[in-house]
Parts: sequence; C-alpha cells; structure tokens
Amino acid sequence: MSAYVYDLSQGNKDLKDLLGGKGANLAEMHNMGIPVPPTFTITTEACREYLTTGSEPASLAAEIDEHVTSLEQAAGKKLGDAQDPLLLSVRSGAKFSMPGMMETVLNIGLNDASVEGLAAQSDNPRFAYDSYRRLLQMFGKTVLDLDGDLFEDVLDEAKLSRGVASDTDLDVNDFKAIVARFKGIIAEQTGRDFPQDPREQLLAAVRAVFNSWNSERAILYRKRENIPAELGTAVNVCTMVFGNLGSKSGTGVAFTRDPASGAQGVYGDYLENAQGEDVVAGIRNTIPLLDLETIDKAAYDELMSIMSTLETHYKDLCDIEFTVQEGKLWMLQTRVGKRTAAAAFVIACQLIDEGIIDEAEALRRVDGDMLAQLMFPRFDPTAPKTKIAKGMNASPGAATGRMVFDSHEAVDLSVNGHKVILVRRETNPDDLGGMIAAQGILTSRGGKTSHAAVVARGMGKTCVCGAEELDIDVKNRTMKLPDGRMMRAGDIVSIDGTTGEVFEGEVPVVAPPVVQYFEGTLSEEEVAADDLVRSVARIMAAADKFRRLGVRANADNAEDSARARRFGASGVGLCRTEHMFLGTRRSLVERLILADTPDGRTAALEALLPLQRGDFIEIFEAMDGLPVTVRLLDPPLHEFLPDITEITARVAVAEKVGGGASEEDKTLLAAVERLHEQNPMLGLRGVRLGLSIKGLFTMQARAICEAAAERIKAGGDPRPEIMVPLVGDYHELQIMKDAIRRVEREVSEETGVDLTQIPVGTMIELPRAALTAGEIAESAEFFSFGTNDLTQTTWGFSRDDVEAEFFSNYLERGIFKVSPFESLDVDGVGRLVKIAAEEGRKARPELHLGVCGEHGGDPASVHFFDKVGLDYVSCSPFRVPVARLEAGRAAVEDASGSDTR
Amino acid sequence: MSAYVYDLSQGNKDLKDLLGGKGANLAEMHNMGIPVPPTFTITTEACREYLTTGSEPASLAAEIDEHVTSLEQAAGKKLGDAQDPLLLSVRSGAKFSMPGMMETVLNIGLNDASVEGLAAQSDNPRFAYDSYRRLLQMFGKTVLDLDGDLFEDVLDEAKLSRGVASDTDLDVNDFKAIVARFKGIIAEQTGRDFPQDPREQLLAAVRAVFNSWNSERAILYRKRENIPAELGTAVNVCTMVFGNLGSKSGTGVAFTRDPASGAQGVYGDYLENAQGEDVVAGIRNTIPLLDLETIDKAAYDELMSIMSTLETHYKDLCDIEFTVQEGKLWMLQTRVGKRTAAAAFVIACQLIDEGIIDEAEALRRVDGDMLAQLMFPRFDPTAPKTKIAKGMNASPGAATGRMVFDSHEAVDLSVNGHKVILVRRETNPDDLGGMIAAQGILTSRGGKTSHAAVVARGMGKTCVCGAEELDIDVKNRTMKLPDGRMMRAGDIVSIDGTTGEVFEGEVPVVAPPVVQYFEGTLSEEEVAADDLVRSVARIMAAADKFRRLGVRANADNAEDSARARRFGASGVGLCRTEHMFLGTRRSLVERLILADTPDGRTAALEALLPLQRGDFIEIFEAMDGLPVTVRLLDPPLHEFLPDITEITARVAVAEKVGGGASEEDKTLLAAVERLHEQNPMLGLRGVRLGLSIKGLFTMQARAICEAAAERIKAGGDPRPEIMVPLVGDYHELQIMKDAIRRVEREVSEETGVDLTQIPVGTMIELPRAALTAGEIAESAEFFSFGTNDLTQTTWGFSRDDVEAEFFSNYLERGIFKVSPFESLDVDGVGRLVKIAAEEGRKARPELHLGVCGEHGGDPASVHFFDKVGLDYVSCSPFRVPVARLEAGRAAVEDASGSDTR
Repeated sequence: MSAYVYDLSQGNKDLKDLLGGKGANLAEMHNMGIPVPPTFTITTEACREYLTTGSEPASLAAEIDEHVTSLEQAAGKKLGDAQDPLLLSVRSGAKFSMPGMMETVLNIGLNDASVEGLAAQSDNPRFAYDSYRRLLQMFGKTVLDLDGDLFEDVLDEAKLSRGVASDTDLDVNDFKAIVARFKGIIAEQTGRDFPQDPREQLLAAVRAVFNSWNSERAILYRKRENIPAELGTAVNVCTMVFGNLGSKSGTGVAFTRDPASGAQGVYGDYLENAQGEDVVAGIRNTIPLLDLETIDKAAYDELMSIMSTLETHYKDLCDIEFTVQEGKLWMLQTRVGKRTAAAAFVIACQLIDEGIIDEAEALRRVDGDMLAQLMFPRFDPTAPKTKIAKGMNASPGAATGRMVFDSHEAVDLSVNGHKVILVRRETNPDDLGGMIAAQGILTSRGGKTSHAAVVARGMGKTCVCGAEELDIDVKNRTMKLPDGRMMRAGDIVSIDGTTGEVFEGEVPVVAPPVVQYFEGTLSEEEVAADDLVRSVARIMAAADKFRRLGVRANADNAEDSARARRFGASGVGLCRTEHMFLGTRRSLVERLILADTPDGRTAALEALLPLQRGDFIEIFEAMDGLPVTVRLLDPPLHEFLPDITEITARVAVAEKVGGGASEEDKTLLAAVERLHEQNPMLGLRGVRLGLSIKGLFTMQARAICEAAAERIKAGGDPRPEIMVPLVGDYHELQIMKDAIRRVEREVSEETGVDLTQIPVGTMIELPRAALTAGEIAESAEFFSFGTNDLTQTTWGFSRDDVEAEFFSNYLERGIFKVSPFESLDVDGVGRLVKIAAEEGRKARPELHLGVCGEHGGDPASVHFFDKVGLDYVSCSPFRVPVARLEAGRAAVEDASGSDTR
Repeated sequence: MSAYVYDLSQGNKDLKDLLGGKGANLAEMHNMGIPVPPTFTITTEACREYLTTGSEPASLAAEIDEHVTSLEQAAGKKLGDAQDPLLLSVRSGAKFSMPGMMETVLNIGLNDASVEGLAAQSDNPRFAYDSYRRLLQMFGKTVLDLDGDLFEDVLDEAKLSRGVASDTDLDVNDFKAIVARFKGIIAEQTGRDFPQDPREQLLAAVRAVFNSWNSERAILYRKRENIPAELGTAVNVCTMVFGNLGSKSGTGVAFTRDPASGAQGVYGDYLENAQGEDVVAGIRNTIPLLDLETIDKAAYDELMSIMSTLETHYKDLCDIEFTVQEGKLWMLQTRVGKRTAAAAFVIACQLIDEGIIDEAEALRRVDGDMLAQLMFPRFDPTAPKTKIAKGMNASPGAATGRMVFDSHEAVDLSVNGHKVILVRRETNPDDLGGMIAAQGILTSRGGKTSHAAVVARGMGKTCVCGAEELDIDVKNRTMKLPDGRMMRAGDIVSIDGTTGEVFEGEVPVVAPPVVQYFEGTLSEEEVAADDLVRSVARIMAAADKFRRLGVRANADNAEDSARARRFGASGVGLCRTEHMFLGTRRSLVERLILADTPDGRTAALEALLPLQRGDFIEIFEAMDGLPVTVRLLDPPLHEFLPDITEITARVAVAEKVGGGASEEDKTLLAAVERLHEQNPMLGLRGVRLGLSIKGLFTMQARAICEAAAERIKAGGDPRPEIMVPLVGDYHELQIMKDAIRRVEREVSEETGVDLTQIPVGTMIELPRAALTAGEIAESAEFFSFGTNDLTQTTWGFSRDDVEAEFFSNYLERGIFKVSPFESLDVDGVGRLVKIAAEEGRKARPELHLGVCGEHGGDPASVHFFDKVGLDYVSCSPFRVPVARLEAGRAAVEDASGSDTR
C-alpha cells in the first residue's frame, strides 16, 4: 500500500487529519454508495514533508502515477490521450475549511493533442478550447505564479474586438486564438513552453497546491481562525466532470436546511450549463435549487435522496457541491455546514426531534459564543448608516443616544428621559453612574479589557473602546471626526459593540427575543411560537440537566441580583463592595480618608455602616435562599480621591493666578500625595487595607451580619458568605477571620440571631495564595479564584496598561492565541488554579471552590474550571446563560472524553 | 519516671527544647562533674500545657514534691525547716536566651520560722532577714503582680530615716522592720497574708515564671528576635547558694575569651560578698576576675580549670555565672557566649589553631551578617555627636558631608573635591549620578527597599531613609529639624547607616581594615599583624574551598566590575544596561522616544550604539576571562522622561501665566501622556519593549557583539552572555533569540570574529516564567532568577509602594518574620524558583542557573539557592564576600545536614 496517496475506498470522514476535510468526506460519500467522481487524495503528511524539506517525498511521483492509472481504468480513458483524454482537477483540502484561501487547478491533461480528442468526444470544440484556455490560465497564474491580469487582459481584448460582453458569447475560434496567445504569454514570461506532458502538469499543480498553504492570505486566515500553521493541506486529484456541456448539465451548491434560520427543507442554488467557478464568479444569476425539479426531475430526486441520506449519516446540517453532467449527478463535496448562531440552536433541536441526535449531542452542536450573539441587541442591518470610525468591539450590542462627555450630565439627561452615549477618552470608577445611565460607552483609548470595556461587559452594556481616529476633547465637549468635522455634546451617535463601528445619527435597533425569554417577559405561547426561543429554552434545559458546575453571578446591587436570578444564577459569587462607596457616599469615604484622628475615622465608619447594611438587605432579599459572597473592600483608597496629576495642576495654577488654592484643595492634595502609589495594582489594597485601616473590614462584616439578622427577623433566608480579598499569606486571613468571627458573635448577641456560621473565605488572586493554598485552606472555608488579578500578577502585566500597548502585537506574532484576559491561560494561570484547588482540598476536603473573574463567563475557561473540579463559576448576570450552557457542554464533553471546542 | 520534671542527671546540653538553655547546660555541667547546686528542671512541655489550658498539669505538684525531697536529701536540709531550712531559687530558662525578659524568684522556703533557722545556721541574722525581705519583695512583685514601687518606697524610707545611701548600711533591725512592713503591704494589697507554706510559695513562683513567658516585654523581644511564641519556658528550681555570706563569698560572670575582640585569656567581673542581682543592679563596682586569684586562689584555680574544661567541651567561647559561698565554688550557668562579629572570626580561627574545631566547624561559627558588619565604615564611637533624627538603617556605613538637595549639584560639588550627602524626600533613577557622587544618601520617605535604599546597598553606599521627623524641602533647599531649627544646603550632616541615626555636623569615621584587605590595599605583613583581618582571610579561604555555589556580582560599569573581581566575584551575573542610558545620554534616549518616524528612531539608536559598545568594552576588559551577563533594557521608557505630574503642572502654569508653555515642553508632555502607565511595574517593559520598539534590543545585541569582537582582536577573552528580561512566555524569548542570533551572524561576518556562540538566556522574574520554565528552557541557555520582581509579582506588591505603608505593620503582627525583599520567601517565591530550576533542567540538563536579585547577597537566601542546586548567585560587589562566605557555610551545612542559621 502507498504511504502518501489514498484512494476513496481507503478513506473515511474521520481521517480529516490525514486527508483533509474534502478528501475525507469524498471518501465517506463514495463508501456510502453516493456517486463521486473517481478521486485520489495526497495526504497532508506529504504536504508537511514538502513544506519542511522543500521537495515532495521521493516516492510520491510513482504513487501518483499508480493512482492515475486506476483513475484511467475507472474512466476508460487515458490522461493526455489524443482521442479521448481523461481530465483531472487538483484541489486543496485542509483539515479545517479555509474557503478560497488555497489553490485549485482544473482540466489537467489537456494539451495541443488531447484538446482535439476532447472536442471530438464531446462533439463540442468550443467547450474543449474553452477548457484548454482555462487550464492555461489557471496553470499560468497558480503554478507558474504569473500575473493573472496578463490573461484577463487577453480575454477582455477578445471580447472587445468581438463586441461582446460575456465569455459565453465567444466562439471556438475566439478560444483557439486565446489559447495561442495564452501559450505565448507563458513561454514569454517563463522562458519555457507550457508543459504538454500531463504528468508534468499534474505534479506541478500538486506542488502549487502545497505551496498555497503558505500564501499570505492563507497565513492571515489561519491566524484569525486559530488554525495551526503546521497542519498542511491534502490534495485531491479528481476525475473532471463537466457541468458546462449544455442544458442537460449544470452545477450547484446546497444546504440540507436553511443555514441562516435553521428552517427545514433544502436550500440551494443551481446554474445551468456551468462549472463551479462560474457560480463563484457570479457571471450569471443562479436559480433556486427547487427549480431543478422542473429541469431534470431524475437528477433532482436523486439529489434530494442523497441529501437526506447525508444528513442522517452526518447527523447534522450538511452543505454540498454537485455537478450534473448530461443528466448524471456527481457529488463534488460535502461537509457539516456552517450556520448562524440561531440556526445552530434550531437545527440541534430539530435533530433531537427527528431522533437523529440526543440531548448531549445537541449540546455539542451549539456553544456559548453563539448564545451570546443571540443575546446582544443589534442594529437593523437593512437601515442606512453613516460610519464615522471603527474602534474595538469591547462589549457587544447596539446603542444610540446623545453624546455626553461627563458622567453627571449623563445621569441628569437620563433621569430626564434622554438616551445618552457616554463619550470619554477613557473611563474610571467615578464614571460608573454615567455608565449605568448611558445606553452605551464610547472611548478613544484603552483595549478590550480597559475599565470601560470590563465594566460595560459586566453590565451587558454596549461599548466601543479605543476608537483612536476620534479626537475626544472632554473639556470642550467635542469629538473631532477623521474628516475634520466636529461633533458636539448633544449630537446623536450610534455605536455597534459587536463590530466596533461608530455611526453618526440614529440607527434603528432590533431587540433580541432570547433576552426577553431569559428576562421572563415572553408568554409560554410566545416562546412556543418562536422556533429560536423554543430551541434555546430546550438546549438550556438540557445544559442544566447535565451540568455539574454551579453558575453564580457577579452582582453588586439588588437589581443585578434579581436579573441574575432570572437568568438562572444560583447565587451571587462576587458582590463587590467598592461600588457602594461611590456616588453620594463619596463624601463619607473622603471623610474616612482625611480623618486624622481615630475618632474621626470611627465616626466616618459609623456613618457608612447603615448605608452598607441597607445595600446588603436589598441584595439578600433579591437572592433569598441563595448564597451571596460579599467581598470586603478591595481597591486602594486613592481611587476615591481625585487624580494626582489633575489636582496638582489645579493647585499649581491656583497658586499662580487664582489668588491661592483653596484650603480644601490643599488638604485634598496632601492626602492624594500621601496615598499616591507608583503601582496601585500592587499597593495598599484588599486585606492589606483591612489590616491597616482599623475598623474598616469589621464595619463591613457588621453591616453584613446586621443585614442578615434583619432579613432573618423578617422571615427571610439570607445566606451571606464573607470573602477577604488579596490574601497572600495565611496569617492575613487568620487575623481577619478572627476579627470577623468576633463581629459575628457580637451581632449575634445584640440581635439574638445566631450568625456565627457565616462562611469566611478568600479570593485566590495572587500567585503566592495559590502556591500556599494548603496553609490558607486551614482558615478559609471557601476559595474564589480572582482570575483577573491572578492573570495580572502571574504574567506581570496590568490590563489597564498593556492591552492597548502590546496585546495586538502579541496576538499578531502568535505569542498569544487569545488574550489571557479573555480566555484563561491554562499553562500559567491555570496551573496555579489547579495547584490551589488540589492543595486546598487536601488540607480541607469540604473546601468550596469557585471562580469570580471575568473568565467565569468565558466558554473555553468554563470547560477548564469544570475539568479541575471547581464547584461553581460566577460571571456577570448577562453571561449567566452562557456559563450555564458551557457548563452543560463541559459535562457532556467530559462524559464523552472528546473536546467539543 | 516523671513526665514534667527532670533532675540534672537526666538532662544534657542537647535537650534545650525540653529543658531550656539554662536547664540543659546545668545538667551538662553536672554530668561533667562540675559543681552545680542541686537542681531540678520543669519542662517547657509543662509550661505549654499551662499556657494552653490555664492550669499546670495535674501531676506536676506531686512531681515537684518528689524532686524537692531529693534536693532536701542532697542538702541534708528541709524546706521550711525552722532550724536549718533549705532555700530554693526558681529561674526561667527558655530554649533561646531572652535575657531579663522573664522572672526569677530567690529564697523560696523562708518564712517567719525558718528565717530564724537561717539566721542561726549562718550565724548572720542580718543576712537572714535581708534574704527574707528579698523573697517578700520578689514574690510580691513577680508572683502577686504588685507594684514594685510599693516595696522600693519602704526601702528608700528606711535608708532615709537611717541617713544611709546603700542597703548594705542597713542592719538586721532595719531589715526586720522592713520585713514586717513588706508583709503588711502584701496582706493589704491582696487581702491575704504572705504564704508561710514553702510548697505553696514554690508552686506560685513556678506559675509566675510560666506567666512571664507572655509578659509584654517578652512578647516584644521574641518578635524582634524571631523566637516562636509557642515554645514556652522551662523552670529551674535550684538549691540556693549564697555569695553574700561575707568576704569569703562572692559572685561573678566570665567569658572564656574576650567576647569583644576574641583575644585569648579569661575575661570577667567579680563582686565580693554579693548575690547575682547585685551585679546586675550595679550597686557596687565589680573587680576584674583576675583579682579573684589574690582573694581566693583555690576558688580561682578551680574556676580557671572549669572554664578550660567547658571551652574544650563546648568547643567554643563560653560565658558563665558562678558563686563562691564561703570558699566553695558553684557554677550557676554556662552557655556558648555571645560575641561581636570581630571576635567570632578571631575565635573561630583560634579554635582551629588549638585543634578544637576544624575549618568546616569554623564556618558554622561565623556568618555573612557578621562579615557585613566588619565591612561597613563607621563613626568613631567615642566622638561627641548631636543627634537630630533617626530613620531606617537602609544601607550601613558612616558618611559625613555637605547637604545637597539636587543630584547635579552633588556631582558638581563632588567634582570640586567636596564631600556631600544627597538629601531628598525620596530618590529616583535620575538621582543616580548624585548618589554615586555623594558620600551617603538621606531621605525622609521610603523604606528599606525604597529606590534610595536598594541602589545605595548595591553601591555599598551609606543610606538612611524614611527619616520622617525631618521636613525636607527640596525646592527651598532646606531641612527643618524636629525642634524647629532649619538646616540648609551646604550645612554639614553625618548619617549612620548602621543605626539610622542622623547627626548635625561632622562625626569622625573609622575605616574598616577588612575592606582594605578585600580591596588588596593591605600588605601581607599588615594582614599578618591584624588578628581580625588574618582570621577573616583564613575563613574566606575555607569558604571558597568548601563552596559549590559560584558568586558573581551585579555591576554596570568597569569600576564596579573591577571591584567585584577584587572582592572575589567569578564574573558579572547582572550587568544592567539602563544606567548606560542616563546622564549625558538622556538626550539621545529622548530623541529615541520622541522620534515619530522609523528613520528618526534608527538614527537615535545608531547614535546610542557606539556609546553602549564603549561601555561593554570596558566591562569586558575588567572581567576578562570571566562571564558577563548583560541584561537588555528593562525599565519602561517613561522612566527616561520627566514625571507626569511635574510636567503637567509646569505646562498648566505656563499656559496661565508664562505666556504659554514652550513647544518643547508641550511635545514632552504629549510623549509623557502617551507613555504614562497606571502600573509601570506591570507595563511595557523588558522583552515587551524589545518586541515593540523595533531595533532597540538588536542595537544592544550588536553593541555587545561588536565590543566582544574588539576585545578579541585586542587579544582579550570577553565572555558575554545576553539576557532577555521579563519573559513570561517561551515565544517571547524565541523571537528575541532568533533576532540576537541574526545579529551575532552579521557581526561575525563584518568583523571576521566568530561570535555565534554567545549564550542567550532569560530572567525568570514572573510567576508564569517559572511555571512554564520547561518550555522556556527549550530556547534559554541559562536562567537568572530575578527574585526582586518575582517577589513583587508572586506577592502582588511593589516594593516602591508597600514597604513604608504596611510592612512594619506586617512584621509587627508576625505576618512576615522578615521582609520578603530582604530574605527570600521560601514557601511562595522559593517554590517557584524550585519548580523552574527542576523543570528547566529537565528540559535542558546543561541549563545554567543563577540568581541576580538582591537576595543573591542575603545569607539565608544563599543557603536556599544552594539547596535547590543553582549554579551561582550574583549580588552587589560589596556583598560578594558575604555571599562567598555563606556559600561556603551552605556547603558545610549540607554536608552535616544541620541548619546553622
């Protein structure tokens, strides 16, 4: 048996690695008894050897020869025969579909002698010479690497001199002349005549296909699609069939269902008297596939039968390419068809109904990214638009509103019923109110994990960030467009967070029914009437049935908690308390920071206590009966004060011209200077702050305990868990836990409600915490992996700084396959998660493990978290359905042992 | 056998854990036949049980009774006997000496009846009643927790009314009266009479000693000395012997050699007719021990013989306490004696000479901290001084000079022959020139690992930092003292980096001969004539003989390299290139940063190339024949530009009043804003910068290669190694290595010198690098652990920010035993080092492993690096001898399996 060449009977659909997708599926069809033109496939292994060594394997030519002989026997024709030549096509076909990225050469076998044989046999000299000129043209361009325009110019000239518009209006003499000129071009450009030896043509074409693996466009495509560069392509050498032999011939493409909507029934296009490349080139308009029935019922019926057979066999939507040669149907390709996200859900459910797949398999047919797509609001694609810039698609969705450059203004306008887009160079925690009030956020700086992007995604709010073409001047409330025009506060702008596009004026929006379903605003009848929603509901039910992993939400207020619950969260995995310190409470926090006596500090804390307690009461009520993990204050204190550069400049200017800076500003400046940190990410935060500011964390613990007591007295079932952030050493947690336990006992005594069982745990968000998890677990009753911070410290870069600076460079160079802030870096950060999970559980077998970083809602990361045995993931409310789905998919992936991603 | 009480014959010197140091050594002496008063020891286990449960073990009282009976039998006296009472002392004694931190009660067994017996037996009623009042006083204060002043007041009154100054002038009647009054105080204050039952006295005293383990001063002392809080103390119950029975009696302390200089010959003090506490209280002046020979030759001779025996037995300097009771010598304590650093070296060598210990043991008797002490310049301790403040002892040494507040001024003055102290609120890389020029650095902000401290230690430059009492106003060039006085630029100040003290005016300095020895400025005769220098030389030779670990130096210029070589470095482990970008070259770096075209950037790089090449030529020459590891540029570019706050304020002010900011300032501001990072430590640095700024790292590689080629052509033997900083993923290194290899080939071709074998490696300074070291080692030919950065990212704190903020708090609370920037955190950072070393070596067995963080010169850390099998440590030139010594000590530690630290 040959090593580098396979015939159809040796292949099957599972040999994609070796035979490529096209070759494997042709073999599969052949073996199913479906008519496929006799074909052999040169393996990807041969390609890899060729690409590595620069020449094909020594035995390849002989192997090809041997298989050509088989094709000749099957066809009863001989390659290059002057009477009745066998013609071959040479087609690329890699493991993963790379449509149009690599090369194809048709009509191999034609030469000055055999073209006459083809003319005689087909009784169609025009067809024969048209086929010959096609070979010369493709060979010249693809194999000999000549400029394609040289050939196109000749064709254009011929049409011009004949006064016709289309190739189809040229006759045999025209083509004979064109053939002569094409041969001249080749001889002139390469210094060699076009090879008349068909075997030389064939081998050269095979090499050209190998080489096309590394064409610029192929490399670019692979990078974008994350296809490994080392796979290589297989090459399929097929007996030519012709759809261009007259009205009984034709060619088409089809899907076994509608790939856009998932609706049942075949869906395709047909072109009479044409070859595949004519369909692609769009020379004539295609007709609906259904019309083939009237043209050639027998061929149509056979096609329908084959499509039905394929779908049952592949258990999925298939797409196909076929040719009818004088009434005889040939299948040229099939594969599991690409489809829209909506179609994926609908089809998966149809296939369950049809008994073709089970629920577990249906889960493998969809994914979280698809579901996320279905949840974003979107602009009406048919509406006219004026695009003014393109930034990063930071948080999907479509939003329109008046431009505002200031968060307070955003809140004011929004309260008065206006829709606004918050426009900033970049955002900071102070903009939160404005971000909540706005329909969307547009920034000119920062990447996909900038503050604006992260917070927006967390809120399910549309965001375009880093739109650098826009010159945003916050002070003058203007935005200069690339063409020099100026937009001003109050002007209407529309932003598409799915594409990153920014439009002038209003673009109408389409609201997604899937979100309405999750929100519970659709009636049962409405769900039943909508194929997509019904399918999503069914898939979600399956995911919930299979999944082992719990899904909680990151929510800081009652509204988000309630939404998370509607979206299927089984608790709050991360309730950040810093947002409770902003807005109108900022003045209290300033008092706390500026307090220069213990009494002053105590007074400020006491003023904050009832406000925090109120927050918790609302959240516990919204999540009644479900756990709420409250993280004690994490960010450094100076985040609550003005920026040092801003206030320094203000004071300096006031000192020079304003008659001196105000005492208030001077005090503030002194505090800002005192608290200023070179690297706030690595500064006085989290538990360090709790250990430094006496009473801060215990005030928060007291607010939690008192809120819980109040809820219990009101007949509720609050389930708080207290989480200490940024622990790096077990002592830190132990000291804090002791203090929290004291507060629990105090409040228990004061209220008469037993609160001493509130779990106390910690974030694992520093490498050292992961590396000493065994010690930390002695005190911690739960771990929650803060994978955002853990990624920052493990890699040593802060997402505020690096993403815009070098992430795109790193992605382009292949250092990152995907941003480690988007998908968990399994080798580095993941290893720490695994170490901590294992050693934590070893020290405390009942240790509860969760994750509350952004990765909790990322499909690939969810699978990893499932695999390392975490108990739950927590993500933003809007990502909860995605996480539920992926948790279900992870479960069936685990069960089947195959990776569905 | 009893569980909680040991008699002397059951103990020995190795049972310190159980019997404490005093108890173990008393047993040892007893078993050597040395006269020790009959004693039993209550174990630390009993103490721990007492401290945990709040009461002593149930069996303890009975065990004590049993052992008291043995003491009674040995003495032929009975406790509390009215005719001839046995008296006991109750003394604390923990595993580690905690001098004066815990309690002692003497004369247990005296009561109203037995005091008369003692008076009769001793024929000295005054002595008996003095002893009784001492018991009452100690018991009242220590056991009953009464205010000691109550008793002192009575004594003072008695002396006053008798018109005498000293207790010794009071007679028996005075003491009888005092005893009565003391008993009154006890009854009045406690509501109970002083217990007449000697066994009740004894048990209460034992409990008091247990309790004193947790006295405030004991807790504080343990924290400072890193003694674990859970050890507890043993209690020694000794038969009383009396040095206060007249002129044939006395008490003393002694060392077997001079603990200050190490000089041979006994050294001690003696006090006639006195008890131990009188020596401590300093009531009378002691006489030199030698004078005992004339007072009581027999006792003296016996003592000399015992001291000689002890030294031979303990193989070390011993200190002892003894009492002579009416001509009979009793040993009350011995232990291996504390000594100065100088004495430690001298004695260790004497003991080798005397054949008592071998060289390996001598290495265990000294350590790197001691050696470091011997290397610092110091103020003459006898000189008069005016102290004005105390800061942190950041970098040891003693420096005097004129105050300058500006680095340029420092350089100017220094060039003109003036000694200066650079005075700043804090320093930054721009101050480097000034720091080099200055004798020492004084700052009012920042901790022991602030920029000033780290750089100063690296340079062996004296530094006091964080002297917060001083109000430093750089703009007005003044320093306000705590008393309100003002010092100005040009005033003389002296700083002691060993104590952190700051003095007004000049304090004369003593230059350390050990440094002169390392510098090679002492003749052989001078070395031979100086006990200390000779001993240090001998110990260093032993360390070099034993050590496995190489020692290199961190050096950025030829001068440091040459010094490092003199100090015994076998190469440069870290040659930072950023310092080569400062000073007069800053303008070139600014050009590079501000260049807005590729050509402009190339031009700037080309201008830098010959300068860098020149730097390397000098360094390679200084280190000819030895490896020089050059780290490519690490810090973010904005470190070469002005501070954002400063320039923003300057531009803002100029815009308001100065008629507009200059174009230059505006351009600079724009660049500063563009490059500004929230967390520069986690930003665009190291290899990220190299991958972003085209040509930067290859320019540096070219400068290295060209310098090497030039040195080779000049007959030299340069051994450069190129180190890529801040690698987190193997792709980063691979891309850079490919680029460096290209440069090597280019320069090889251009110069005709083969440079293609220059090793290329990486820093391991990010957790991810350690976690993926196996992959990185595929490209890296060496690893150098950057433990400073690795500590920062593993713990998630930046040393710029945290040390002043919460490190002292963390040290106080016991979260840190020692700052992880000072000594490597073995559990967290060390685990990463271990993982990387193991997995790196697995992937590439010949991988060379070193460390170039500050920890490379830290004694404890050196031992760890030796244990995990690194090939070398690299540290600042001044730490090289310390590292050599510790590497030697680590080797003998490994060999013996015992931990010498």
